Amino acid sequence: MNNKSKLRLLATSWLLGACTGLLLSGGALAATTAQPATPWMSGFPPADDRLIRNSDRDYFAGDKLRWTVCHLRELFPSKVLHRGLGAPVNLDYQLDPAIAEVTFTPTGTDTPMSWDQAFDANHTDGVIVLHDGKVVYERYAGCLDEMGTHAAMSMTKSLTGLLAETLIAEGVLDEAALAGELIPELQGSAFGTATLRQILDMTTSLKFNEDYSGNFLDPDGDLWKYSTATSPMPQPESYQGPRSFFGYLQTVPADGAHGEAFAYKTINTDALGWIIARASGKSVSELLSERIWQRMGAEQSAYFTIDSIGTPFAGGGLNAGLRDLARIGQLMLNEGKFNGEQLVPAAAVRNIRQGGDPALFAKAGYTSMPNGSYRSMWWFYHNDNEAYAARGVHGQTIYIDPTARMVIVRLASHPKGANAHNDPTSLPAYQAVADYLTR
Amino acid sequence: MNNKSKLRLLATSWLLGACTGLLLSGGALAATTAQPATPWMSGFPPADDRLIRNSDRDYFAGDKLRWTVCHLRELFPSKVLHRGLGAPVNLDYQLDPAIAEVTFTPTGTDTPMSWDQAFDANHTDGVIVLHDGKVVYERYAGCLDEMGTHAAMSMTKSLTGLLAETLIAEGVLDEAALAGELIPELQGSAFGTATLRQILDMTTSLKFNEDYSGNFLDPDGDLWKYSTATSPMPQPESYQGPRSFFGYLQTVPADGAHGEAFAYKTINTDALGWIIARASGKSVSELLSERIWQRMGAEQSAYFTIDSIGTPFAGGGLNAGLRDLARIGQLMLNEGKFNGEQLVPAAAVRNIRQGGDPALFAKAGYTSMPNGSYRSMWWFYHNDNEAYAARGVHGQTIYIDPTARMVIVRLASHPKGANAHNDPTSLPAYQAVADYLTR
Repeated sequence: MNNKSKLRLLATSWLLGACTGLLLSGGALAATTAQPATPWMSGFPPADDRLIRNSDRDYFAGDKLRWTVCHLRELFPSKVLHRGLGAPVNLDYQLDPAIAEVTFTPTGTDTPMSWDQAFDANHTDGVIVLHDGKVVYERYAGCLDEMGTHAAMSMTKSLTGLLAETLIAEGVLDEAALAGELIPELQGSAFGTATLRQILDMTTSLKFNEDYSGNFLDPDGDLWKYSTATSPMPQPESYQGPRSFFGYLQTVPADGAHGEAFAYKTINTDALGWIIARASGKSVSELLSERIWQRMGAEQSAYFTIDSIGTPFAGGGLNAGLRDLARIGQLMLNEGKFNGEQLVPAAAVRNIRQGGDPALFAKAGYTSMPNGSYRSMWWFYHNDNEAYAARGVHGQTIYIDPTARMVIVRLASHPKGANAHNDPTSLPAYQAVADYLTR
Repeated sequence: MNNKSKLRLLATSWLLGACTGLLLSGGALAATTAQPATPWMSGFPPADDRLIRNSDRDYFAGDKLRWTVCHLRELFPSKVLHRGLGAPVNLDYQLDPAIAEVTFTPTGTDTPMSWDQAFDANHTDGVIVLHDGKVVYERYAGCLDEMGTHAAMSMTKSLTGLLAETLIAEGVLDEAALAGELIPELQGSAFGTATLRQILDMTTSLKFNEDYSGNFLDPDGDLWKYSTATSPMPQPESYQGPRSFFGYLQTVPADGAHGEAFAYKTINTDALGWIIARASGKSVSELLSERIWQRMGAEQSAYFTIDSIGTPFAGGGLNAGLRDLARIGQLMLNEGKFNGEQLVPAAAVRNIRQGGDPALFAKAGYTSMPNGSYRSMWWFYHNDNEAYAARGVHGQTIYIDPTARMVIVRLASHPKGANAHNDPTSLPAYQAVADYLTR
């Protein structure tokens, strides 16, 4: 596939990168781009060759990615995730400069690396480490600073999962209910016969190819259709397909029996977002604001990218500040409590923390998570520390280590969009810091 | 002009409404729309006939306007105007319920009306009254509440003007300098020979027809070209014109001598925004954040709509909360001080408060402001109380009455986009409240 083909692909696939980040990232374009003297989008106006426009559609390509992850709202419509009007509740700080020099050995190598070296190796835009609720390390780079927001991408799924578990714990939703009962419009689709639990754990069986190395250039392919349907941008008059997440989800056909294997497909989370909205009367962004963002002393309002009817992208649309995502991690570590208040039921967090079924997970073949599982849109490492995480495709994570009482949030823009590229220099680094903090 | 023609016009003129609000608003479409049972954009999904999409391009038409004024970022890209990370500084409250019953006689009528009746008559979405810095009245309706933001539209100009006066007071800019000296790219345009002062006061003479009753259906007309050039949305491949505010401004031809008459043309403010950015190294939204929003204890981050290269729309793109705009009004009343801190130089506010030249203003023929003037992008009533204001086309105002030590901010979505429709039921109401507060 040549670059021209790749660019042509991007003509309507605005959203795929936000969802998975695989398109073009780190591919041929990146390799042939020399390091620029002037940052992207700087100056009044920026030079022509330093512009990033939504119409160029290569905003995730090469090193443009490192600008775009902090500026998605400047390219596309978005919906606020409101922090409310109260004062932020500042995090406590007890910085430990020695963390920078904590060393570990990246998976598959023999050469030790320091935490600070990993920061660059992983294309990190910001990282924060909390121990016993106190910030012990914080650093920014690239487009990010303490007042910025960054694309959470698939970490969004974990927050959507938390909302669903909250409604389950409150008895508003029943995890055994069929999606077709919860959303009658889904009855004719594959989701109709899936339980809420299967959707939460992505053990549905959906005829939907989310393999970006495969059919994604095909206008008849699933990813193209999904991306077009869920774009917030105007479509050509000739386009006759669905124009929203809700519209697209109704078209997904069944592909065998549900419940037999973990299969990571973003549309599960989009369906979950619909179920949450129908059950609560609020969109995912509104519910997340009401239940959590307005009550955790958030420093910044965050936002979601949306489709053309204003639906927040439950599977990948969150953009938020580093410290606010750290608050989410601490909330999980504290079983739903933050600043002494129970924001979500402890039962919701405990239910998530059971972890998923490693046997079902193994069928998906994730090489960098050999013992892993997935439950309620969270990833479980099943390591000695019982760590689990939200994960975004360019290396973003909310990493929760209950044993070390540690939370790490890392925001990143690794040009290669797949965590197999990040995990070797991040997972052992997280473990090394956990070991250091509990030494 | 039939509705179909109007809709066709809107195909590329996304921004005109945000700038002036005249398009379609309150026209034939509004008159034929029955009051709906279901609010716009409610439900998951909203019903097809309750949807407002950017691609429909009639989002300012009829009663859709009342949704759109609070949701522009959900239709278009936007740029944050950051409040910072500190705690908001709450306004003091001393509510006076009697204000609701203050009566006045609308201009041109004999029938008294109460303040609360005027709220509805003026299609108000939110109004707040401060006296001696304390909130004495506050009310919301329509799409707005205390956590919402609302399109300031042309009130944006006054904030851009305040920034420019700040840079002048600090010696960074010289009001006698020619725009062609400040921005060499403008030398070939009408702006090249205009002084910064002439741009600030809109006494430039520009070949640019901003009369929406005239040529705006003409693809060769100025408004069409301006709107297309400054749209943040992708353009057809066939489009070869400029694609930014900066690009468009360079194409504006001269039309006689500058300095001879006030002529309200939004492009003056866009040029001013460019001058501010070039001189300060920061866009209007960044400078406004740094100088004011982060330092006035703002409750909410606000935002600007932007063009396709991320330039904030200095002439009409601000969207902000009601109380934060009240802080701006109080800042002006206090000659640049707020919460005891001098945020902008007193000289900047005093320079604005001189008012403009009523003789130059009279040539523009504003019937509802017979004694008015315009200076530094602020409107002067030259009434007994020396009141002056920021004004948006659907009835928005920041009204500052130095004599009564009163600030009124009103956010509104009057379906008829021209303040001649609002002034009869608002200006005498403001005076009546001023009289009541100083009785």
